[in-house]
Amino acid sequence: MKNMGTCDEWSVIEEGFDPARHEASESLFAIGNGHMGQRANFEERYSGPSLQGSYIAGIYYPDKTRVGWWKNGYPEYFAKVLNAPRWIGVDVEVGGAVLDLARCPVEGFRRVLDMKRGLLLRSFTATLGGAKVRIATERFVSMARPEVGVVRYAVTALAPLKLVLTAGLDGEVKNRDANYDEHFWNILETETAPRAGVLLAQTRKLDFRVGLAMRLGFVGGQDAAEPGCIGNSMMVANRFAVDLKAGETATLTKFVAVVTSADHDGNTLKAVAADVAASAEMVGFEMLKAEHAAKWADIWSHSDIVIEGDAAAQQGIRFNIFHLNQTYTGEDERLNIGPKGFTGEKYGGSTYWDTEAFCIPFYLATAPSKVTKNLLIYRYKHLDKAIDNAAKLGFRNGAALYPMVTMNGEECHNEWEITFEEIHRNGAIAFAIHNYVRHTGDTGYLADYGLEVLIGIARFWTQRATFSPDKGKYVILGVTGPNEYENNVNNNWYTNTVACWCLDYAREALALVEKSSPRRFAEIVAKTRLDRAGEPAAWAAVSAGMYFPYDPQRRIFLQQDGYLDKEPVTTADIDPAERPINQHWSWDRILRSPFIKQADTLQGFYLFEERYDLAALKRHFDYYEARCVHESSLSPCIHAVLAARLGMMDKAYALYLRTSRLDLDDYNHEVDEGLHITSMGGSWLAIVEGFGGKRVQDGKLVLNPQIPPAWKRYAFRILWRDRPVEVTVGRDGVEVLYAGPQPVTVSIWGKDHVLQPGRPLLLRRAEAAAKPVAEKA
Amino acid sequence: MKNMGTCDEWSVIEEGFDPARHEASESLFAIGNGHMGQRANFEERYSGPSLQGSYIAGIYYPDKTRVGWWKNGYPEYFAKVLNAPRWIGVDVEVGGAVLDLARCPVEGFRRVLDMKRGLLLRSFTATLGGAKVRIATERFVSMARPEVGVVRYAVTALAPLKLVLTAGLDGEVKNRDANYDEHFWNILETETAPRAGVLLAQTRKLDFRVGLAMRLGFVGGQDAAEPGCIGNSMMVANRFAVDLKAGETATLTKFVAVVTSADHDGNTLKAVAADVAASAEMVGFEMLKAEHAAKWADIWSHSDIVIEGDAAAQQGIRFNIFHLNQTYTGEDERLNIGPKGFTGEKYGGSTYWDTEAFCIPFYLATAPSKVTKNLLIYRYKHLDKAIDNAAKLGFRNGAALYPMVTMNGEECHNEWEITFEEIHRNGAIAFAIHNYVRHTGDTGYLADYGLEVLIGIARFWTQRATFSPDKGKYVILGVTGPNEYENNVNNNWYTNTVACWCLDYAREALALVEKSSPRRFAEIVAKTRLDRAGEPAAWAAVSAGMYFPYDPQRRIFLQQDGYLDKEPVTTADIDPAERPINQHWSWDRILRSPFIKQADTLQGFYLFEERYDLAALKRHFDYYEARCVHESSLSPCIHAVLAARLGMMDKAYALYLRTSRLDLDDYNHEVDEGLHITSMGGSWLAIVEGFGGKRVQDGKLVLNPQIPPAWKRYAFRILWRDRPVEVTVGRDGVEVLYAGPQPVTVSIWGKDHVLQPGRPLLLRRAEAAAKPVAEKA
Repeated sequence: MKNMGTCDEWSVIEEGFDPARHEASESLFAIGNGHMGQRANFEERYSGPSLQGSYIAGIYYPDKTRVGWWKNGYPEYFAKVLNAPRWIGVDVEVGGAVLDLARCPVEGFRRVLDMKRGLLLRSFTATLGGAKVRIATERFVSMARPEVGVVRYAVTALAPLKLVLTAGLDGEVKNRDANYDEHFWNILETETAPRAGVLLAQTRKLDFRVGLAMRLGFVGGQDAAEPGCIGNSMMVANRFAVDLKAGETATLTKFVAVVTSADHDGNTLKAVAADVAASAEMVGFEMLKAEHAAKWADIWSHSDIVIEGDAAAQQGIRFNIFHLNQTYTGEDERLNIGPKGFTGEKYGGSTYWDTEAFCIPFYLATAPSKVTKNLLIYRYKHLDKAIDNAAKLGFRNGAALYPMVTMNGEECHNEWEITFEEIHRNGAIAFAIHNYVRHTGDTGYLADYGLEVLIGIARFWTQRATFSPDKGKYVILGVTGPNEYENNVNNNWYTNTVACWCLDYAREALALVEKSSPRRFAEIVAKTRLDRAGEPAAWAAVSAGMYFPYDPQRRIFLQQDGYLDKEPVTTADIDPAERPINQHWSWDRILRSPFIKQADTLQGFYLFEERYDLAALKRHFDYYEARCVHESSLSPCIHAVLAARLGMMDKAYALYLRTSRLDLDDYNHEVDEGLHITSMGGSWLAIVEGFGGKRVQDGKLVLNPQIPPAWKRYAFRILWRDRPVEVTVGRDGVEVLYAGPQPVTVSIWGKDHVLQPGRPLLLRRAEAAAKPVAEKA
Repeated sequence: MKNMGTCDEWSVIEEGFDPARHEASESLFAIGNGHMGQRANFEERYSGPSLQGSYIAGIYYPDKTRVGWWKNGYPEYFAKVLNAPRWIGVDVEVGGAVLDLARCPVEGFRRVLDMKRGLLLRSFTATLGGAKVRIATERFVSMARPEVGVVRYAVTALAPLKLVLTAGLDGEVKNRDANYDEHFWNILETETAPRAGVLLAQTRKLDFRVGLAMRLGFVGGQDAAEPGCIGNSMMVANRFAVDLKAGETATLTKFVAVVTSADHDGNTLKAVAADVAASAEMVGFEMLKAEHAAKWADIWSHSDIVIEGDAAAQQGIRFNIFHLNQTYTGEDERLNIGPKGFTGEKYGGSTYWDTEAFCIPFYLATAPSKVTKNLLIYRYKHLDKAIDNAAKLGFRNGAALYPMVTMNGEECHNEWEITFEEIHRNGAIAFAIHNYVRHTGDTGYLADYGLEVLIGIARFWTQRATFSPDKGKYVILGVTGPNEYENNVNNNWYTNTVACWCLDYAREALALVEKSSPRRFAEIVAKTRLDRAGEPAAWAAVSAGMYFPYDPQRRIFLQQDGYLDKEPVTTADIDPAERPINQHWSWDRILRSPFIKQADTLQGFYLFEERYDLAALKRHFDYYEARCVHESSLSPCIHAVLAARLGMMDKAYALYLRTSRLDLDDYNHEVDEGLHITSMGGSWLAIVEGFGGKRVQDGKLVLNPQIPPAWKRYAFRILWRDRPVEVTVGRDGVEVLYAGPQPVTVSIWGKDHVLQPGRPLLLRRAEAAAKPVAEKA
């Protein structure tokens, strides 16, 4: 990326100000703490292009849907992440002129995202009002106190000048993507006092309430008068006027509280916000920063990946891990992970199948297990709405179809081929339960929550599959697979596969809970009105009788019925000038082409790898990857994991690179809209499951480490049953260090090893393991 | 329909005023003359629900598209028929109170659509301002002078009163369906004079200009002062104040001209409009009405259908013929037939494949051949845009894809499964050329226009079909057939069939023109850069190698690949409470069901009936009609024609009834939005091609008349080679009367007869013909 030549291992650094790149930088340098997030908008006024974005987790707006042609079953609203009142603002006047980087000459501009400590830093020199000033800012949203955000704004005069700083909270905000250009907020109350202010806002629908309070510290300059209070019905502010001599610095510190009716009584928000802000001010800037940095140090202690010999890869993976942790911290089971996190408005909603398919594997391995558990409980709590959703589509008897896009469990998306047909999402949600249980060993989750979800999902698949007298098999008609470059197809192999897996796993979970928790089992049977004998038998019959499209000649499963009718071309046949095809080809041309947006059949090989030998994987990988254009950010990672498993390390590495620096290098020229947060889980997958070969099998941690040719060494930290494991992979061997209380057995390169707590295990790359894995096939 | 109990054979009559039905009546009683049309909005003010609609043919607005999720290739605009300045208005004040039927007591309300003469009549008594008035109005848009509309408004005092009538032209109008609630018109100029006014309007995009002028006649009452001129930047009006004694009548006559920049120099519109209005006033109301009625008499003389013994059917078919003739008169090859004609805004655009598939057969048989020729030339003139349209979808070398919905040749529709995939429309456009040539014998059309279109269409199909190595056949992937309850299917049998027919017909036309018009042929080859040897060979190869899905067990062609995988249910299995399914089922459920919206495979049996014997037709009819929900207004008619051919007269009659009174009986509760103009062609088809068995085969008119059990006798008038033929079908026989200059051979009941001009031919129902036709099979 322009102006970001240096790949600092812990920071993203922008040198020199390029207004044309500013919106992209606003995304890249965004900060968040799970409770809230803030794009890297400037504190001072800026008249150039900027996407203002201040987001609060769980506070959303049901915007009236916009649709060209209505289809029965479409939802009426699309939930939008809300651009909330602006709390970072500091207006700057020098000698009566307003600081605006779109208009003033700027020198020495430097913007730094300090990923180690979670800080946004900025410094530059500007000329305005006949004088030069040097500005330095620091900003963070506290990981230690999620309701607190802090801005420090320091202005150094390079010549004597009159400085006015105005710091406020501003409720006059809009969403750029509002469907009908409407305001989403009412401002209920504003109150200004010297060095303080409170603003109370309410969403115009759903009555979410948000209280913002600020405390202001001001130091420096001559004759600093008491601040002037400014306020109107939409904003509160303080105005600090001061004369600065040459070399003198004035520093404003803004301690802001952002509290919501989701966490507090909506009638007390003013007082709560004021208290939180006052408390933050009392602790002070340096202490707040220190406790915030300590939290980040803890996060990195069990999720960091170190890469030696490849600075771009190093920066890339930390950037991904950093943003994932900024977006979701796992404290609150009402929250989830939006595709753009707190970095933009696009995609609205908060929850896609991305969470289960691409993020949960990351959190399962890098965060305490309660984090994933909360993500699962999120779906558990939406089960009733998933049942309603399925009922709208004509399904009965407690069948559950989880929404494609949701905030509160209700479907938000209005594209029939996705909303109604991309039903494999139900499979990802069931698989995440299995994934959680096998990682954590917490089978109790099935009794407490999981089984009810699995019953609803099994019922859905049983009804959604129909019997084809012509084939003498069950078929699933009219679906869209993970490859959204096919719509409304019959018998998508991945969908049929995951459907059967769900039916089988639901029966397995049923038996397990019946045995382990008979009382809870009886409760569930009563609650779900389960026909204990008949229903599981029906599930088994559908699963056993399912049809799978197959080509006996090539010995491959077919992506869907009719796939072999497509033109026998591969991505090598596409004119490079027409890539990406989604920007050059009309939609019908894409649909009837054989080209694949993201792993579809191969997604099944990823999820259910134990079913297929390497030769089968190789056949399918060679066939489908040759037809995959990877035009989803979620595509290269899955292919990288499979390529690594096949020992195709060059391919795996190339695919990894495509994922991990997608945003930093702005491959798709769309970073201005926000980052691809959920696909960041995929970058992590490519390293840890791909190169590191990490799996969980039979309740055991499994590692099969390889190393890309370009790397000298790499190390990843994960948690295993909530205890840290550090894996360092060098060119000749691997070292594994476990920090748990008891010894643990880990399989490395196909052999079990008992790890003693605190005692590194060093293994030389054995002969067998050094062989390319694919040769086994 | 409520309040319309009497099925008058020449009129639609509404007795008593029901505000809840008013918008429906505004549609049903709409008048038009090909150049313009007017919903039956009241002249006087009306504060109740009303869809104001005054439409001018060819004057449209490219409204900015509204779409939920953009797909590559979508057009940026959707052309809308424009609600134009209101020219009918007459405000009425009695004793200072405003006449408003939503507020005043009304007695004796009667609204009549006189279809014989093309008049809208209304009369009622209202109480307001402490007095009763009797109102009688007449309105028509002249068939003799298409730019002239006339309103006569008569007020009779039932007690002495002060009456004020204000007659104007009002430019303050909107479209209800504007995507962004925008105004579409600028008013450029207004000018008022005593008994006259002019208003000049301009569309805000495309700069269409419309000039309206009025001349006002006023008679009756005491002390009628000179009218007061009223006007502002949006309207012009005259105010007539008069005292009426009991029993006295004041009559206002409004002669209005509506002229456009499509027909005149845009800078002269004011003068042109004023002249047209002045000329109309000079001719006077009665003469204008007489010349208008004479035109209608001429239309009826060659298009009427008489049904004895079934008043509802009689009224229904005349209503359909009347509205078709109001919508398109065939004078102007720039115009076409919108699905709602001049009766509503819905569907925007003007042209769908409806024109070729359902309207052209009607005009071919009931109107001079130039009418159909102009409809064909409309498409000929859009050929370059059809080539551009195909190029946007990736097709090359002059391949043409006509738009799904258009005004000027550019695609307007934004639903990928329709816009990009319902490509069988190209087939209907080619077939219409064939249909025209076989009806008229005008093979010169192919050289002059048709061949170029056929080459573009043949090129499209050749490129759109791809070769399936798996099947060893050509396939057409990713289409939507006429049955829009399936989307993005492979190898829709109808589409593949019509594609091959186009390829074959293009080669046939090529050979014919090469032989008959070698010079013109050379011109076309040069213009289209046709590879004379190679391209037709490629067309032949695709046609010969096309794949058609077929079920050898049932001996039926399959609607598309995979159709047999659907649940083996028929419409009898649908819960009646869930009909129509498009109002009760979610879209995905409809798609994966076997249910069919309108004739799809059977549309092919209709178009290409000579290819299939009756037994094959019977098999396909029985299979597919049992799965057809007829949820398109274009569905029952085609099935009625086929049922009649099979001798299933009860079925044919039931299907006919469903078509012909669709709007009059408001089956679908949507008449308020406008009438189903294009499907009216289908009602006519059901009688003339269905019961009458009219065909054209080998350049010969063919009749196979049958009669529904409920009818005593029916007669239809058609034109054969521009000369009238009257066919009267009774229970025992048929009489045919031909008015041409030369004897002509007509096939009746399978036997050729020479008709002598002016000499009725009477045939008793012969033994062979009396047998149900299906028994032949």
